[in-house]
This record gives sequence, structure tokens and C-alpha cells, in this order.
Amino acid sequence: LVSKLPDVGTTIFTVMSQLAAEHHAINLSQGFPDFPCAPEMLQGVYQAMLANHNQYAPMAGLPALRQALAAKLQQSRDIVVDAETEITITAGATQALFTAIATVLHAGDEAIILDPSYDSYAPAIRAQGAVPVRISLSAPAFAVDWDQVSQAVTPRTRLIIVNNPNNPATSVFTCSDLDALSAIADRHDLIVLADEVYEHLVYDGVEHQSVLAHPALRARSFAVYSFGKTFHATGWKVGYCVAPPALTAEFRKLHQFLVFSVNTPTQHALAQYLATPAHWQLLPEFYQAKRDLLATGLQQAGFTLKPSQSTYFQLADYRQIKPDLSEIEFARWLTVTHGVASIPVSAFYGDGRDHKLVRFCFAKQETTLDAALTRLSALT
Amino acid sequence: LVSKLPDVGTTIFTVMSQLAAEHHAINLSQGFPDFPCAPEMLQGVYQAMLANHNQYAPMAGLPALRQALAAKLQQSRDIVVDAETEITITAGATQALFTAIATVLHAGDEAIILDPSYDSYAPAIRAQGAVPVRISLSAPAFAVDWDQVSQAVTPRTRLIIVNNPNNPATSVFTCSDLDALSAIADRHDLIVLADEVYEHLVYDGVEHQSVLAHPALRARSFAVYSFGKTFHATGWKVGYCVAPPALTAEFRKLHQFLVFSVNTPTQHALAQYLATPAHWQLLPEFYQAKRDLLATGLQQAGFTLKPSQSTYFQLADYRQIKPDLSEIEFARWLTVTHGVASIPVSAFYGDGRDHKLVRFCFAKQETTLDAALTRLSALT
Ligand SMILES: CSCCC(=O)C(=O)O
Ligand SMILES: CSCCC(=O)C(=O)O
Repeated sequence: LVSKLPDVGTTIFTVMSQLAAEHHAINLSQGFPDFPCAPEMLQGVYQAMLANHNQYAPMAGLPALRQALAAKLQQSRDIVVDAETEITITAGATQALFTAIATVLHAGDEAIILDPSYDSYAPAIRAQGAVPVRISLSAPAFAVDWDQVSQAVTPRTRLIIVNNPNNPATSVFTCSDLDALSAIADRHDLIVLADEVYEHLVYDGVEHQSVLAHPALRARSFAVYSFGKTFHATGWKVGYCVAPPALTAEFRKLHQFLVFSVNTPTQHALAQYLATPAHWQLLPEFYQAKRDLLATGLQQAGFTLKPSQSTYFQLADYRQIKPDLSEIEFARWLTVTHGVASIPVSAFYGDGRDHKLVRFCFAKQETTLDAALTRLSALT
Repeated sequence: LVSKLPDVGTTIFTVMSQLAAEHHAINLSQGFPDFPCAPEMLQGVYQAMLANHNQYAPMAGLPALRQALAAKLQQSRDIVVDAETEITITAGATQALFTAIATVLHAGDEAIILDPSYDSYAPAIRAQGAVPVRISLSAPAFAVDWDQVSQAVTPRTRLIIVNNPNNPATSVFTCSDLDALSAIADRHDLIVLADEVYEHLVYDGVEHQSVLAHPALRARSFAVYSFGKTFHATGWKVGYCVAPPALTAEFRKLHQFLVFSVNTPTQHALAQYLATPAHWQLLPEFYQAKRDLLATGLQQAGFTLKPSQSTYFQLADYRQIKPDLSEIEFARWLTVTHGVASIPVSAFYGDGRDHKLVRFCFAKQETTLDAALTRLSALT
């Protein structure tokens, strides 16, 4: 067997979660909530199962769920999407990302990704025999230099992947970011893959600008979302992809042979749960309180923070604590000796650059965050 | 966008199920049960959700589920498999098949498939930029001519895909089939992908011979299974892949970026459900009664049958009814004018060969089969 991905090891999220378990550390590494999801969601799954919705869903997803999503986009963002030809339900956002990448890229093609980036992008590109062209954004602002992006385009470039809101940088694109992205994509006829799984987790009144609300980008983008991230059920593994009919048609050709369809009872439950806008409208308020609790404690423990604008992550500079350790060394040390697990930000970079930053997840109960902060207070 | 799969349309299963719905036909086309799955399974999912098992499962699958599978293989077949390094839980068998194919094949490689074959194999091969080399087996025996397979091997061949028990042929490999396959794979150093999703649905005392029980094949095979097919829950989308550690390690590299992990609550429920061997041991008896009911009625309606040895499908020759129609024409005509949907067997062939055979699914309640047979009795 010739390895398709010779350089790939186990994802950092699995590595750190396992290390956390081994050392009975409080796991603020991998991004998932430790509080329950809404009882109505669980009831919805159970009712759907009792109603015998246990066989294949339609390949593109349950029509009721796709219609609920179209209604949500229209009502909350004034975005018009055709449920039949533009929305595909996927086995999580990761599957949507892989499928979009596989749909666009052939062997020898290039795709531009902006680091820090989610660790599935580059391997998914390489698995197509294509080449990731990585542009590294620098702390603390992690701003995109669109001229640099433009210069990275070659005749082989087919795709640009963006993550907005950005995990782990927590930065959010402005309208002028989208305009700049759009201009480059138009000029070189590129497809855009927008990973917008944190669309609802945006703080301090900042607004998320979706590619779906930008007419020129809308016409050439796959936009990917996650029910697990939004509704505290990362283990349900249901996400979706929105793209114009021509792109969706090609996406579904792969989707149907990659997974065929997605878990049926959860789709029924999510379709119902989407009927209540409060279920996502209250999220910023809910998470901001957790963010502020964690941020205050981390500062008291000696970290310097980059303010978190979005996602459920907080970046923390540890140079006042252990200036000599690399990010991965610090993350291991903090897990093993202080019982709090985080993620080294270098894991999101192709060039392994080290900003002396680790990422903490605040999608946790107050008691969990308090317990972690108590442990970290020993640092000072 | 340059299409990755230019020739692919919608799968025949979606096409026929949609046609059935439009014409209020009884749907004996796509293979899924119309009876409920076990209440314990549903309870198991609900209990797992209430116990807050709603976040990411480990990437390779829930340890309890993998251990239950290893125990099942040991107890029921005397096959020793290491749960930690040889079993990966997947989002259905289709994802396992795609991932195994993507793991093995690079652009320009060849993979041998034996038609009739499940309609995901060839597109999954093409999606890697690889080439499916198709060998057509002929009705009524659908026996494999292993010399012909051997002659189809070229220096570019990397993989042979076999489906045993076979959907739609319902034939089952003998030990000498496995020996012949093994000899070819050894001689040319090929990987084998064994789609064994119907392992438990084997009739009239015939025994299923798994690649896992054949030491030489075991060392070079991916074997793929489906909980949905076995436990009447095709919409749960949970399957698994068994392969030696070195193959599993490469499989998981792709799996972790393709879906990362699989729905957590269903994995808990399935781990529990596997504790009772009767849950799969009683399946042949259960399905044989349905098979016999359908077979008797189809014969009375004028079809000539190839006896069904396995799976939950029955092949029927319609030459005494409408000799001039092609399989796809007959399947449409039967759906539209007699209200019973089936699958044309030509959909399983790369060369479109037409045996004047359609496939009926008997994973249905007696009342459904009776109603279909009443409709079909109008044929004579
Ligand atoms: C699929 S595990 C990674 C979870 C996540 O999105 C993160 O921690 O960044
Ligand atoms: C994934 S839909 C196909 C179901 C099936 O296995 C069949 O009908 O053969």
C-alpha cells in the first residue's frame, strides 16, 4: 500500500483529548460542550425513531430539514436559498468540507488555505492528489493580506478555503474582506469553500458576514455549517452544505457515493428544533458569559489574551509563564502538571510557526471553567 | 468546475424509490425494511442521549462498540480481531467502502470489480482518478471465472472488490472461491476489499465464508459491514471496517478527515444490542419466510426465479410476461402500471447488459409482500 497521506498522524484534537483523559486533566482542548443539549432535541430523535423513521433518508437530506434551513436563512438573514437544489445534509461539517474539496480538486490542482486553519483542510486537499498552498496569518490580528493571497494564485489554483468566523484566531471577516476575496475569486475564476460553522457564535455585537449574503461570492461558493457546533451536539454528526445548483449537483454526485445519506432520526429532530429562532439567537449571550469568566481567570493566572471575537475558543499567550517552552511543550506541560488541556496553535499552521499561544475551549459548564481556573491559579 | 464524475447521475435506488412514491407503488426496489427495528435499539439511543453521550465519539469508534464486535467475531466465528487496531466504526458501509477505496487507490491505478456490483464501487474508484476494470458475471449462476479475473490483472492493478454475499445475484462464495481470490491477490500483491454487509442473511443452511476467516486473505483485506442492513435500521448510517493494523492505520488517516467520527448515541445502543447473539442468529429464519412468500407469489404471477441464496433480494426473469422490454423499461412499466417497484439488474453492470431480470426486495412486512403480490397477480 502506497500511503495516500504519508505525513498524517492522529489529529491534535484526539491527541490532546487522550492526554487529558490519561492525566485526569480538565479538557479545554478539543472543541465540544460538556453541558447537555436541549431536551427537545433528544425527545425529537426518540419520537422520530418511535415513528419508524429509521430507514434511509433521501440522499440530499430530509426535505423538512432542508426547508427549515431555507426558512431560517430567509427569516434571519434575508438570504434566499432553494431547499431542493442548493442544500445538502451531510454527516457533519467535516464530511461536507471533504466532499466539497473532492468535488472541486483534481490531481495537480492547487488550493489556497489561510493558516491558522482547521486540520482537515490540507489532508483533504492532498487526498485528491492536489496541493495545498498555505498562507500564514500572524498573531495577534490574524488579518488577511489579500494582496498576498492574490499573489499566491497560479494557473493551477482552483479553490480558496476560508474559515469565518475563524477557529482558532476568533477573527471575523468584514465586508471588505469578502469584497477582496470575491475580487480575487472572480478575477481567477476560483471556487470558494467557506467554513462558517461558527456563524452564530459571534460576540460583542459584531455581525457575521456570510458568503451567502454576498451575491458575487454566493455564485461561486460552497458554504458549510454544523448542527453539532450550533446546538451542543457535536456527536450527532450532522451538518450541511449550501451552494448554487450547479455546484450542489456535482457535490451530490460524490456525496451519494461517499455516505449516500445521513442519520434519519436526528434530521427529523433538527427540522423541528429549527422552528424556534431563539434556539440560535440566544447563543451569543450564552457563550459570552462563559468567555468572560474564562478570560478573567486566565488573565489572573498570568496569560495575556487576544480578545475572543467569535467561536467558543480563547487564545492565550503564555510568555509570562513559561517563555522557553514551545506551544506543544507548554500544552503538554499544562495538561500533565496542572491538569488543564489546551491546543497548541502551531497545530493549525503548515509551517509550524510558534506564537507562544494556546487555545482554550469555553464551551463548558461554569463549574468546569471554575475548576480549571482554580487549577491554573497555581501558576502565579 | 471540471466534473469529478461526469457520467454519474442519480443512483438507481433514488430514481426507483422516487418513481415508486410518485405512482403510489409498493416499493420493493431500494433495499430497506419497512418493519420497525427492535425497541431495545431505540431505547438504547434514547438512554445514551439522556446520559449526555451527545458529543464526539473517539475517531475510530466507541471502544465499547469495537470490543462488542471483536467479541462477536470471536464467539460466533472464532475469528480474532483486535478492537483497538483493526476495527473502525464508519458512517455506514458506503463510507467504509469509499474510504477503503480512497486509501488504496492513487490516480492511474486500476481496481477490478465483478459485475453485478453495488453502484458506488465504480464512481468511488473514478473519484480517485483510478480506473475500474469490470468483469461481467452472467446469469443465472453469476459464478466467478477466476482465470478471467487473473487475466484482468495488469501492472497497475492495486485492488479487487468483491461482494459476498452478493447483491443482487444472491450468490455466496465457496471456500474454493476464496482460495482462488487469495491466490490471485498473493501472486500480484493486491489489496482485497470485501463488502460483506449481508453476512448474516444467508439461507437454506449455506454458510457465509468471510475473508476474515481465511488467513491469507485476512492479511490483505478490508472487510466492510453494516449495522443498518443487519438490524433493520438503514437510516442510522452506522457500519464498520475490519482490516489488519497497517491497513487500518492508513484507513483511519482518511477517515479522520472524511467524517472524523460517527454518531455517538447510536454507537452506544449498538454496543448493548450486540450482547445478545439471538439478534443476528435468528435472521436467516426470519428472512427465509419472507423470501418464500415472495418467491411463491412471483412464480404465480409468471416470473421465472433464480433461487435466492442470500441477501434480502429476489431476482426474477420477466420474459414470460414482457419479453420485449429492457430491464429498465420493465421496471418502470411495472411501477407505473402495476404499482410495484423493483430494480433493473442492468444498473449493476458497467456494460449495461440486460438479462431480462429485475430485483425485488423482501425485507418487508408480510402485509406489504401480500399487497404487492395481489397487484402482480393481475399480470397473468
Ligand atoms: C473534530 S474534533 C475538532 C473539534 C474542533 O472543531 C476543534 O476543537 O477545533
Ligand atoms: C444506499 S441505497 C441502496 C440500498 C441497497 O443496498 C440496495 O438496494 O441494493
